[in-house]
Amino acid sequence: MNALPDIGAIRDAAARIAPHAVVTPVLRSAVLDALVGAELHFKCENLQRGGAFKFRGACNAVWSLSDEEAARGVVTHSSGNHGNALALAAATRGIQAHVVVPEGAVQAKLEAIARAGGTLHRCAPTQAAREAMCDQVQAQTGAALVHPYADARVMAGQGTLALELLGQAPQLDALITPVGGGGLAAGVAIAAHALKPGLALFAAEPAGADDAARSLAAGARIESLSPDTVCDGLRALMGQPNFEALRAHRVEVITVSDAETVAAMRLLWSELKQVVEVSSATVLAAMLKQPRRFAGMRVGLVLTGGNVDLDALPW
Amino acid sequence: MNALPDIGAIRDAAARIAPHAVVTPVLRSAVLDALVGAELHFKCENLQRGGAFKFRGACNAVWSLSDEEAARGVVTHSSGNHGNALALAAATRGIQAHVVVPEGAVQAKLEAIARAGGTLHRCAPTQAAREAMCDQVQAQTGAALVHPYADARVMAGQGTLALELLGQAPQLDALITPVGGGGLAAGVAIAAHALKPGLALFAAEPAGADDAARSLAAGARIESLSPDTVCDGLRALMGQPNFEALRAHRVEVITVSDAETVAAMRLLWSELKQVVEVSSATVLAAMLKQPRRFAGMRVGLVLTGGNVDLDALPW
Repeated sequence: MNALPDIGAIRDAAARIAPHAVVTPVLRSAVLDALVGAELHFKCENLQRGGAFKFRGACNAVWSLSDEEAARGVVTHSSGNHGNALALAAATRGIQAHVVVPEGAVQAKLEAIARAGGTLHRCAPTQAAREAMCDQVQAQTGAALVHPYADARVMAGQGTLALELLGQAPQLDALITPVGGGGLAAGVAIAAHALKPGLALFAAEPAGADDAARSLAAGARIESLSPDTVCDGLRALMGQPNFEALRAHRVEVITVSDAETVAAMRLLWSELKQVVEVSSATVLAAMLKQPRRFAGMRVGLVLTGGNVDLDALPW
Repeated sequence: MNALPDIGAIRDAAARIAPHAVVTPVLRSAVLDALVGAELHFKCENLQRGGAFKFRGACNAVWSLSDEEAARGVVTHSSGNHGNALALAAATRGIQAHVVVPEGAVQAKLEAIARAGGTLHRCAPTQAAREAMCDQVQAQTGAALVHPYADARVMAGQGTLALELLGQAPQLDALITPVGGGGLAAGVAIAAHALKPGLALFAAEPAGADDAARSLAAGARIESLSPDTVCDGLRALMGQPNFEALRAHRVEVITVSDAETVAAMRLLWSELKQVVEVSSATVLAAMLKQPRRFAGMRVGLVLTGGNVDLDALPW
C-alpha cells in the first residue's frame, strides 16, 4: 500500500468513485485575479461530499477492496476530514468504518463521523496511542487500514481531482495545493504531469509545520515535527512515499505564516463567497506572498475543504 | 419604464448582459435535501458579478440606453447591492454612475461603490431626501434614473436568472425567491411562466416587512411599511408593477421570522459552504417552515447575494 500510484491507477480511481463523488465546480474571481496579477481557477473541494477532497481517496480505498475484505470493514486514525470521509465512503458500500479518535478532538467532527455511520474508538491524544488502538481494532475485526495519506489507493483517489480540473481548465500553466501528509500533493503531481508534463507544480505549507519544505531542501525526509499552526488539516508529518513523489515531480514548496493564511481565508470568504477552512487558504496566501513568481500565469488552486466552526472564526 | 417586461424583453436582456454577467452555478446538498424532504437546486447569485443578482438588472438597464442617453450617465438611490451593481454596470459601458446614499449607510458598501467607479451623493436618511437628491442629480446631469425594482428594464434583467436556471435544471416543479421591492420576484415569475406555465411560484418575505403577503391577501397594494427585520435587502416597499406581476402569476408568499432566517443562513454556510447574506436565506427558511408544501418537489431556490460583514455575523 506504500508504493506510489501511476496514472492508470488514478484513472481507475476516477471510474471507481464517479458514482459517489461530486464533480466540483471551478470558480473564478475578477477581484482576486487583479489582486494577484494572475488568472486564478479555484477547484472547490469544499463542495465535495463530506465538505473536503478526502472523500475521493477514502472512496477509492473502500471500493478497491475485495468483497471478502470489505465485509470486515475499514479502520483509520483521523479525527478530521479523513475520518469523516472514510465513514461516508464505507456507507456507500454498506460496510463498517472504525475511526480511532484522540481525546480532545473537536466535538462537531466526532458528531459528523457518527452521523455518517462511523464507529468511534477513543484513545489518548498521542501518535503511539492512536496506532495501538488501530492495531487493536484491526486484530479484533480484521478491518482494512486506510491510512490518511501514505496509501497508494488514497493518493490515487486524491489524484482524480487533477484529472477533473485539467478537463475543466485545460489551459492551466501551474497547480498549487496545500501540503500536510502529502496525499493530495502526491496524487495531484502524478496525475497532472501524466497529462501535462510541463505543468509547474507548487505546494503551500504553514511555516509552523514546514517539514515538506525542509525535507525537499535537504533531499531527505525529516522524521519528526512539532507542528505549531492554526491549519489543523496540515499538521501531519509528510509520508515517505509522498515525499518521494514530491521530489520526483519537482514540486516547489512555498511556506506561509498563519497570519498570511488567515488573511487569505478572509479574502476567499469575502470575494469568492466560499466557506473554506483555514488550511485551504494557504494556496492563495502563497500566491499573494510571491506574486512575481506567478505573474500572468493561469493557475489552478485547490480549495481543500470547508468544514469550519462558524462560532470560532480566526479573525 | 413602469410597465412589465414580456418574455421577449427578458430574452433581449439575456443577450444584452451575456458579455458581462456570470452564468452562476446551481449547487446541491444531500444534507439539505434530507432536511427539507425535497430536491433543492440552489441558484448561486452570490457568485454573480458584484456578489448579487442585482448586476443583471442594472446591466440590462445600462445597455438599453441609446448612446446619447448613456453619455449623460445613470443615477439611482440605493446604498445596497443595486447601487454597487449600477456602478459596476456603468463601468462596463464606460459611463458615469451617480449613487445617492443616505447618511448612516454601511461604510463597506460605500467603499465598494466608490471602488467600482461610482460617484456618491450623500443625503439625509429619509425616502423624501433620497428622491430629492436623485431629482437634483438628474436635473444637473441629465442622468437616466435606474430604479432598483419598479423599472421594466431592471425586472427584465432579473428575469434572465430564471431563463438560465430552467436551462440548467429543466425538471423543476417550483421556484422560490426572496421578495422585497419585487424586481426579482416579478422578473422571475414572467420568465418562468413563459417557459413553463405549470411551475409553482413562491416568494419568501420577512415577517417584519410583510407588505407583499398582506398586499396579495388584500388584493390591493399596501402603500406604507415600517420594516423591522435583519434582512437589509428586503426592507423596501413592493412596487406597483411588481405587485401586479406577482398577483397575475399567482405567486404565493411565505413569511418567515428573522430567527428562522438566521438559522437557515447558518445552514447554507455550514452545509452548502456558501457565503450568503441574510436576505438570501429566507428561501430556505420558508421551505423549512412549511416542508409539507414542498414534499418531494424539485425546487429552485434563488440565493440572491453574498455581501456580508464578516465581522458582524448574526449568530
